[in-house]
Amino acid sequence: MPEMRRDPLIGRWVIIDGSRFKGLEDFPREENTPSRQAICPFCPGREDQTPNEVDAVRPFKTPPDTPGWLVRTVPNKFPVLSPEGAIQKDGYGIYDQMTGIGAHEILIEGPDHEKTVTELSKEEMQAVISQYQSRYRQLSSDSRVKYVTIFKNFGASAGATVEHGHSQIIALPMVPKTVLEELKGAEDYYQYRGRCVFCDMIAQEYQDKERIIDENNSFLAFCSFVPRYAFETWIVPKAHGADFSTIEKVMQDQLAQILQSVLQKIRKVLSNPSYNYYLHTAPTGYGHGESYHWHIEIIPKLTRSVGFEWATGLHIVPTFPQDAARYLRES
Amino acid sequence: MPEMRRDPLIGRWVIIDGSRFKGLEDFPREENTPSRQAICPFCPGREDQTPNEVDAVRPFKTPPDTPGWLVRTVPNKFPVLSPEGAIQKDGYGIYDQMTGIGAHEILIEGPDHEKTVTELSKEEMQAVISQYQSRYRQLSSDSRVKYVTIFKNFGASAGATVEHGHSQIIALPMVPKTVLEELKGAEDYYQYRGRCVFCDMIAQEYQDKERIIDENNSFLAFCSFVPRYAFETWIVPKAHGADFSTIEKVMQDQLAQILQSVLQKIRKVLSNPSYNYYLHTAPTGYGHGESYHWHIEIIPKLTRSVGFEWATGLHIVPTFPQDAARYLRES
Repeated sequence: MPEMRRDPLIGRWVIIDGSRFKGLEDFPREENTPSRQAICPFCPGREDQTPNEVDAVRPFKTPPDTPGWLVRTVPNKFPVLSPEGAIQKDGYGIYDQMTGIGAHEILIEGPDHEKTVTELSKEEMQAVISQYQSRYRQLSSDSRVKYVTIFKNFGASAGATVEHGHSQIIALPMVPKTVLEELKGAEDYYQYRGRCVFCDMIAQEYQDKERIIDENNSFLAFCSFVPRYAFETWIVPKAHGADFSTIEKVMQDQLAQILQSVLQKIRKVLSNPSYNYYLHTAPTGYGHGESYHWHIEIIPKLTRSVGFEWATGLHIVPTFPQDAARYLRES
Repeated sequence: MPEMRRDPLIGRWVIIDGSRFKGLEDFPREENTPSRQAICPFCPGREDQTPNEVDAVRPFKTPPDTPGWLVRTVPNKFPVLSPEGAIQKDGYGIYDQMTGIGAHEILIEGPDHEKTVTELSKEEMQAVISQYQSRYRQLSSDSRVKYVTIFKNFGASAGATVEHGHSQIIALPMVPKTVLEELKGAEDYYQYRGRCVFCDMIAQEYQDKERIIDENNSFLAFCSFVPRYAFETWIVPKAHGADFSTIEKVMQDQLAQILQSVLQKIRKVLSNPSYNYYLHTAPTGYGHGESYHWHIEIIPKLTRSVGFEWATGLHIVPTFPQDAARYLRES
């Protein structure tokens, strides 16, 4: 019989129907291997084909917009939000409107076109995470910016349009709904129980063991007990902390290690699928330091949302998280 | 410059970036035409290949599970929720669990395999709507059922796995999150302004005119001012009413007319795209009769959700609703 589950964070119900899972071969296969002959604006030597870089990790002190970088961040040529202008808020009848002020940057994850994030060197992967934090800090220092979201689309069916490995960073003029819901849910839980819901989640993962995929000194990776999608995986810092932007270098490096390790497992077990991941952190200076707990959510694109999910917000998941975790843990 | 908009119902922000819309030819083309040679379990004469019918519109008084029907409803062979058993609610550490009790039915929209919903006769289309209501009433009379959701997936990329035209009906043991958010948002609006937010929406649509696609005596169809997706279309009854299950035959027939008309326009303008539509109604006996207003939301599948939407709940839409409406209205 299908099982319904609800998470204690935002009250989301899901339906897990294990009878729909026949085996890994049921999931779609995609060719997500970068082509060798690509002429790519993100490759070294073509720095003039992107807007001027705003930040980079350049161990050899090379000048901006020249080769030599490990990681390079440039404004998106086609930004969804742009930094020029003032925020204007208006009513329009019963609706609210705001000018689309913010920023939209592309973080190029390494010089080598053929290397996906799972193949980066340790040094390159650490540079990615360090650059995440430095862009986060820089963008959130703009008083018009209320939230900075960092995410990655890998593979065409996860929305990637350029195959050279990259993440995206979007600075928003308001705290987005998904984050507000988590902040409020975590605060409600804290008010009621006096504990952080994510810390409780970690305790339960250790107790149950079966959903844990990987860990290191600072982080635990597990398949969510209430997944929206098959093989949905969370990476959560073991020590309580609401704000990603304040973590130290040693913890950044631990994050680089576990994120790459989990993505390697997903690649191996699910045949290099498309996926999305994104960072959820408390907005800097927003409060909620006791109740919220930053983390990364990884969603392999194995199934699609259909009418039922739109109508209800309920997801139907074919794979029990303990089964998904076993595949990934043992890979 | 991109524009941000927020709806007054659930506080959802979207980003509309008209510069991303180059023309209708940018949207993907799909072959959503039913094949002629299909051997299909939903076709007349193969009634023994589905579970026994639970309801049908049979003008010729033919016996159940034999040909002659205009519309036929059967339990889904692979239900996501099933009606056998009691609802058991348990805690599991910090999580909640519930047995997956409910119902999952398939409403076969007509006997002709090659006719999509846009090609049904007036009589057939009216039978579909009348059957929606009769299934809704029947299923919601079960005290274990807290909500009945009616939706349609058309085309492979909207999740349809059988091409013979059909809708789905799922009875749930709780009111789903999406509906709860709308109920609460509408109630908050009502408390503050003493008016129904949907009635205000209709008034604004008449004032602005530019987003209206179609109307008849009972319904207005328009492209939402705050769409999540390009060409997102709402059909809203002009007279206030919270509960779909109580509408009379004349209004059912008007709904059949406008729903089919709008789907025909979408088919024509967007080259027979995949789409989802679903009904949102106040749960019977739930209250909120003054503040909520039932309606249908139609989402053509022209773009896909990617990492940014997952991270934030914000949607990036390439098409202004007034432009989408003009295409549809003039088709």
